[in-house]
Amino acid sequence: MIKDATSVEIDETIQKAHKAFLMYRNLGGKEKAQLLRKIADEIEALGNELISTASKESNLPEARLTGERGRTTGQLRLFASLVEEGSWVEASIDTAIPDRQPLPKPDIRKMLIPMGTIVVFGASNFPLAFSTAGGDTASALAAGCTVVVKAHPAHPETSNLVAQAIWNALEKCNLPREIFGHLHGKSADVGKNLVLHPLVKAVAFTGSFHGGKALFDLANQRKNPIPVFAEMGSINPVILLPDALKHRSESIATQFAGSITLGAGQFCTKPGILIGVENADLENFIAVLSQQITNTKPATMLYEGIAFNYDCQRRILSAQNGVKVEAEASTPADKGQGLPTLASVYATEFLKNPTLHEEVFGAFALIVKCKHQGEIQQVIQSLAGQLTATVIGEKEELLNSKDLVDALREVVGRIVFNGVPTGVEVCYSMQHGGVFPATTDSRFTSVGTGAIKRFVRPVAFQNFPDELLPSELQASNPLNIWRLVNGEWGKV
Amino acid sequence: MIKDATSVEIDETIQKAHKAFLMYRNLGGKEKAQLLRKIADEIEALGNELISTASKESNLPEARLTGERGRTTGQLRLFASLVEEGSWVEASIDTAIPDRQPLPKPDIRKMLIPMGTIVVFGASNFPLAFSTAGGDTASALAAGCTVVVKAHPAHPETSNLVAQAIWNALEKCNLPREIFGHLHGKSADVGKNLVLHPLVKAVAFTGSFHGGKALFDLANQRKNPIPVFAEMGSINPVILLPDALKHRSESIATQFAGSITLGAGQFCTKPGILIGVENADLENFIAVLSQQITNTKPATMLYEGIAFNYDCQRRILSAQNGVKVEAEASTPADKGQGLPTLASVYATEFLKNPTLHEEVFGAFALIVKCKHQGEIQQVIQSLAGQLTATVIGEKEELLNSKDLVDALREVVGRIVFNGVPTGVEVCYSMQHGGVFPATTDSRFTSVGTGAIKRFVRPVAFQNFPDELLPSELQASNPLNIWRLVNGEWGKV
Repeated sequence: MIKDATSVEIDETIQKAHKAFLMYRNLGGKEKAQLLRKIADEIEALGNELISTASKESNLPEARLTGERGRTTGQLRLFASLVEEGSWVEASIDTAIPDRQPLPKPDIRKMLIPMGTIVVFGASNFPLAFSTAGGDTASALAAGCTVVVKAHPAHPETSNLVAQAIWNALEKCNLPREIFGHLHGKSADVGKNLVLHPLVKAVAFTGSFHGGKALFDLANQRKNPIPVFAEMGSINPVILLPDALKHRSESIATQFAGSITLGAGQFCTKPGILIGVENADLENFIAVLSQQITNTKPATMLYEGIAFNYDCQRRILSAQNGVKVEAEASTPADKGQGLPTLASVYATEFLKNPTLHEEVFGAFALIVKCKHQGEIQQVIQSLAGQLTATVIGEKEELLNSKDLVDALREVVGRIVFNGVPTGVEVCYSMQHGGVFPATTDSRFTSVGTGAIKRFVRPVAFQNFPDELLPSELQASNPLNIWRLVNGEWGKV
Repeated sequence: MIKDATSVEIDETIQKAHKAFLMYRNLGGKEKAQLLRKIADEIEALGNELISTASKESNLPEARLTGERGRTTGQLRLFASLVEEGSWVEASIDTAIPDRQPLPKPDIRKMLIPMGTIVVFGASNFPLAFSTAGGDTASALAAGCTVVVKAHPAHPETSNLVAQAIWNALEKCNLPREIFGHLHGKSADVGKNLVLHPLVKAVAFTGSFHGGKALFDLANQRKNPIPVFAEMGSINPVILLPDALKHRSESIATQFAGSITLGAGQFCTKPGILIGVENADLENFIAVLSQQITNTKPATMLYEGIAFNYDCQRRILSAQNGVKVEAEASTPADKGQGLPTLASVYATEFLKNPTLHEEVFGAFALIVKCKHQGEIQQVIQSLAGQLTATVIGEKEELLNSKDLVDALREVVGRIVFNGVPTGVEVCYSMQHGGVFPATTDSRFTSVGTGAIKRFVRPVAFQNFPDELLPSELQASNPLNIWRLVNGEWGKV
């Protein structure tokens, strides 16, 4: 029986995590890498029990969860490599010029240091990769922060298994168990008390706008405001350029049918609106896409509440003025399943009606039909901040689309060309974070190595004795990392 | 006659700056560098008129303002070099692996792009270096943002002169005048309307906690919250270790007398509290410091309101339980002047009384006497966030002070050894930004090249045609900048 953490338990867990931070913050990159790799090993050692538990709790198929486990352990190991190599701390050194006129220049050395204890909210749609030992936890631990996870109530047992794997790893690395804390909470009070705890230094959250914005507001109202990195949702606009539709509307339709219905449409990067100029090619595209949506079997969603919300939102959008339902899956949806649905609307209506700009979390997409290219620009400029945008086009028309790309750049974190936005690569160059309200802070990413930057801040040391400097900043560069020395990059 | 900007003028100025951004954002590093250098030239071309106007408006001596002008033009030219060189955009490239199993790896390229129109609030205590063409404006223009400055009402004519220099530079560079906007406003409504304007993307402010926090709260309550970089004040603790006081208490006292009274104590990095263990050496230090404070002539402060506030705060702190006034300048303060004052208190009182933790903006410092080293740690742990901390010690005792440095690291942005915190070097490694409430965002700096990072956000391009990528991300690296390619740094 899973119980909500009491306020006493919350306080104790945070206090312990803070105390553990005072030790963990000084751990070297090698030791942190060892821990991250050990966590990955321990997650793998859970074997099929983890996959079957996660599948039972999330209704996601085992094959998908096996892939997601690979993503989870891969991301732990990527952060291990990152901190083992060590250059991520952005070490910067200005050496002294004692005889400078009119005043001597001091020796100043700066690097990133961990913030403290981080609260991570598990996400329902990625029970492994964005939950207990997901990207937020991995990047915070890599940064040198201690972590307290609030398990998502939709998969508490999965979260317990992973938490135990983390504790096993800590024990095997001879590190204090309190570096990682794990709490449950169905009540919003648990989250609230975590975010308001004075020793918490930052918050990572993936979920709804409602939830993320509430945490953001709470954090800003603290006596000492703290950053909240909330990834909250997106309709991920797709621009369909005319020549592409003329030459390959069928293959594009197939590609997007897959992306819209992948994982029952339960991805933050699901393409939610597809924007094109009305003509026969677009109609052909809609026809092929409709056929594929009709043929897609409804899938069971993460939990009943999400399926219920999906059905409500799907119906609300479909009932808006001017909206035409182009296709629904021919197999009826059972209880807890989401019915794949495609609708269309003219841009003039879309521009007028804010409801049509809202995310429908599930296998739903809306085609926005424009009278001409200029209307596409208008639609883009009407959009709120988004995680991604996609442009589908032939090479020639892409090259004529600089204005369009410039306009998209202002609202999104990532622009995809001739691909689908789902499938967020975990790598050095990923930007998974868009302009508000897609996320609370467009300056950071929650996927890829850049995610570590959310949990650190710079500190400068002026005229320090070399022995007292962190090794990253010592004169001999003992860690052999890349550093900016008097403005020049080098391993010096 | 200087008039407050009306809400219509505010809206027009922001609208124009936003429109100018749509052009300016695409300017190359070389063109931006040319503009920044031209602004520096035009400021110098103002000659002594600028210095005499600033001196008349701020009561700061001409010699100080001449130095500050050098800092202002130097920082414009440093940002020019930074953007001309170009590597600051943190270009990161992950190349595609089309045959990767189970899924191909896409090509992903990320870099920093400018946010949009930035509102800069001029600071009263640096009429040149933190005002109209100060570090905030220089870094925002360098980032590719357009800027609207609200002039500080204490030096409107100085601000007008510098604004005209910027417009002259824009004209000479054949760039739209609207890249830079300049407004006046004594009323808080002007600032409020600027921060709430939907097209404003970030705010930079240097001033009081009251003012900065109000802007921060406003910005967070917007429909689309925006970052506020407010640098709000600090008491900049100084730890005096026993051996240093034993060996050189007189020279340390002389050094700190200078730092406390520099510019009438009107620096955000003025040392406000000096913490030491009570013994004969500390008493000797206090005696020497007192003598120097007594001998310091009161200086005219920036404006009468600041002098009035200083006198109130100085008296309030001096009247607190257990506080002993050690010294006051022997020359009485005229109207508008601040009376240099040194006080002392025991740590037990300091720990109990939050009033003693408040910044007194002016030539005031408080000695905190501890019974033993452990009490120093307690005092440090009781402190709110600070811009800087300073440790004065002999080498041996410094090396035994790791715990102390670790504790200080948690509350400050910069730690100085055997120096004074005043004098913030403009360089690559400076961190001028501390934990709240010293600033609203400890992750950023307002001095040094890092200041440019406040006005940018990353965007990723996936599977883009090379010709459509910004030159920073093109395959041939046409700008020859440092880039992270598949996780490895290089000029490739």
